[in-house]
Amino acid sequence: MKLATVEVDTPIGPVERIGAVAEVTEPENAAAGQATVVDLTAAYGAALEAEGEPAPADLARAHVPPEMIAFLERGDQAIADAREALEYAAETDAERGPGGAKLRYEPDEYRLLAPLPRPNSLRDCMAIEEHVENSMDGEIPDAWYDMPVYYKGNADSVVAPGETIRWPDYSELMDYELEIAAVIGERGRDVPVDEAEEHIAGYTIFNDFSARDIQGEEMAARLGPAKGKDFANGLGPYLVPRAAVDVLEAPMTARIDAEVWSEGTVDEMYHSFAEIVAHISQSETLHPGDVIGSGTVGEGCGLELGQWLEDGDTVALEIEGIGTLEHTVVE
Amino acid sequence: MKLATVEVDTPIGPVERIGAVAEVTEPENAAAGQATVVDLTAAYGAALEAEGEPAPADLARAHVPPEMIAFLERGDQAIADAREALEYAAETDAERGPGGAKLRYEPDEYRLLAPLPRPNSLRDCMAIEEHVENSMDGEIPDAWYDMPVYYKGNADSVVAPGETIRWPDYSELMDYELEIAAVIGERGRDVPVDEAEEHIAGYTIFNDFSARDIQGEEMAARLGPAKGKDFANGLGPYLVPRAAVDVLEAPMTARIDAEVWSEGTVDEMYHSFAEIVAHISQSETLHPGDVIGSGTVGEGCGLELGQWLEDGDTVALEIEGIGTLEHTVVE
Repeated sequence: MKLATVEVDTPIGPVERIGAVAEVTEPENAAAGQATVVDLTAAYGAALEAEGEPAPADLARAHVPPEMIAFLERGDQAIADAREALEYAAETDAERGPGGAKLRYEPDEYRLLAPLPRPNSLRDCMAIEEHVENSMDGEIPDAWYDMPVYYKGNADSVVAPGETIRWPDYSELMDYELEIAAVIGERGRDVPVDEAEEHIAGYTIFNDFSARDIQGEEMAARLGPAKGKDFANGLGPYLVPRAAVDVLEAPMTARIDAEVWSEGTVDEMYHSFAEIVAHISQSETLHPGDVIGSGTVGEGCGLELGQWLEDGDTVALEIEGIGTLEHTVVE
Repeated sequence: MKLATVEVDTPIGPVERIGAVAEVTEPENAAAGQATVVDLTAAYGAALEAEGEPAPADLARAHVPPEMIAFLERGDQAIADAREALEYAAETDAERGPGGAKLRYEPDEYRLLAPLPRPNSLRDCMAIEEHVENSMDGEIPDAWYDMPVYYKGNADSVVAPGETIRWPDYSELMDYELEIAAVIGERGRDVPVDEAEEHIAGYTIFNDFSARDIQGEEMAARLGPAKGKDFANGLGPYLVPRAAVDVLEAPMTARIDAEVWSEGTVDEMYHSFAEIVAHISQSETLHPGDVIGSGTVGEGCGLELGQWLEDGDTVALEIEGIGTLEHTVVE
């Protein structure tokens, strides 16, 4: 099961819904947005209606809220309810649920958004040693080994899968970063390492677009990246529940105009996602919808390869079991 | 007029409202939370009712939404409507507005929250040269002069005025930072410098609590501060509309257990708030409820003074025209 946020047209204007694509309907290499999406709230309501529940639509909205962060608030129970909804939709021939809500949307009937169009927050680590070594000319500070360091990104700059990214005028050096991101489901504070994974709802692909020229300048002033990162964050195309993806082993590939530039996995992470969640949650509450990037895999960006994106290039990041996240950059 | 967010008890549980204290009811040195607060939505509704409006409560909620970010969405018009409501409340003897909503709350009838209990985002600059010089042993990087650098804070860690702050176990070096913060009202992207002030709804006091030991370590790893800052952000006690405070001239004072440690103003800002807003908004949208700190005034923190907060110390930051923001830190 892959979770999605989609936008559908209605007589009262566009509306966001959460949906799922079943594994069988989408081969690994199918382009995102080309699969039939099941409306999870509508399907859950249809299942309740079939059982004779007298207020199926209201109950469905409470169990499977049609907005991703509200959905994630219910933790693992939300994932279980979504699975039930998806299974019901696979079994029934009905096209509509309670109140006439459509159960399925074909590719031309929805626009795929990022699974979290506006995360509660965005943190990005730098947990893979090879990337740090390549980016810092081999001089890794001791602090990097002591704890998972991270910067906080701009949660308002998430772009939809497929969206074209207009590069900022203040930058010439256009780069991507191949990352996987954990999405927090269950709220937590001072979370022990051995319970930390339970706070992760699932994983998605993260393209941490980077304007390397200004990023280098501003990092010299010691407060971390800002304008170098905050104009665009690619997230998606799907959010895959943590039990459904072997995050450490999943092959990750970056293709620029169909040419492979980067390949790797995050099994090289020096600090695991569990350690990262435990670290961040010290004296600080993690909330549903918080997104935490792994950091770039080794040789997972142009900076490490000595080559840059050019006007009109399409960057496709693929992670097996999650999908392919594509963006075209233009000057 | 000073804008506040307060929490009041109701038979259905605590509810947040926005309110205002009039200048006359609160001398500069009155402790925050000790003034009568006018419920702006209720007072606006009462004024409409007096004019014969048939649906005053609904209209009042649209004009003066009882939640600060929704209120700020209306830009300068929200401030004008709030002023009208406050003036009406000063003129009338009535205690209740439409639907029986209370117009005023006495100090024992409300809890003062931060004006933005959960800002849309939190950015913090470092725009005052003396602080940078003192914090970096005199070596200011060129980039600092080229642009206003900033880190992004944790918008989920805002504490209420008066709230006791439990210092993180991972830190021994407890510090405060005396800052003023601009709060964005009007949404904007690629804002020219000469229009930037219009996007600022007003100002509040910002105490950027800093765990200096871990902050130093993590900044050595180049992604900026995170655990060193993200456990607590003091904001408040009031949000003062930009026309009502001379932000550059307002005297700022930090007292630790009533002893003056820091005094200054932000007229020393090397990059002005207008320049900062223009810079941040390049290729990035600023939203209502975004908070932007000035950076610490010269000698505005213990790091610069060579002394640290101790268990049980009360930090009171005062800015003339805004009020006094107090917090006690405990280990």
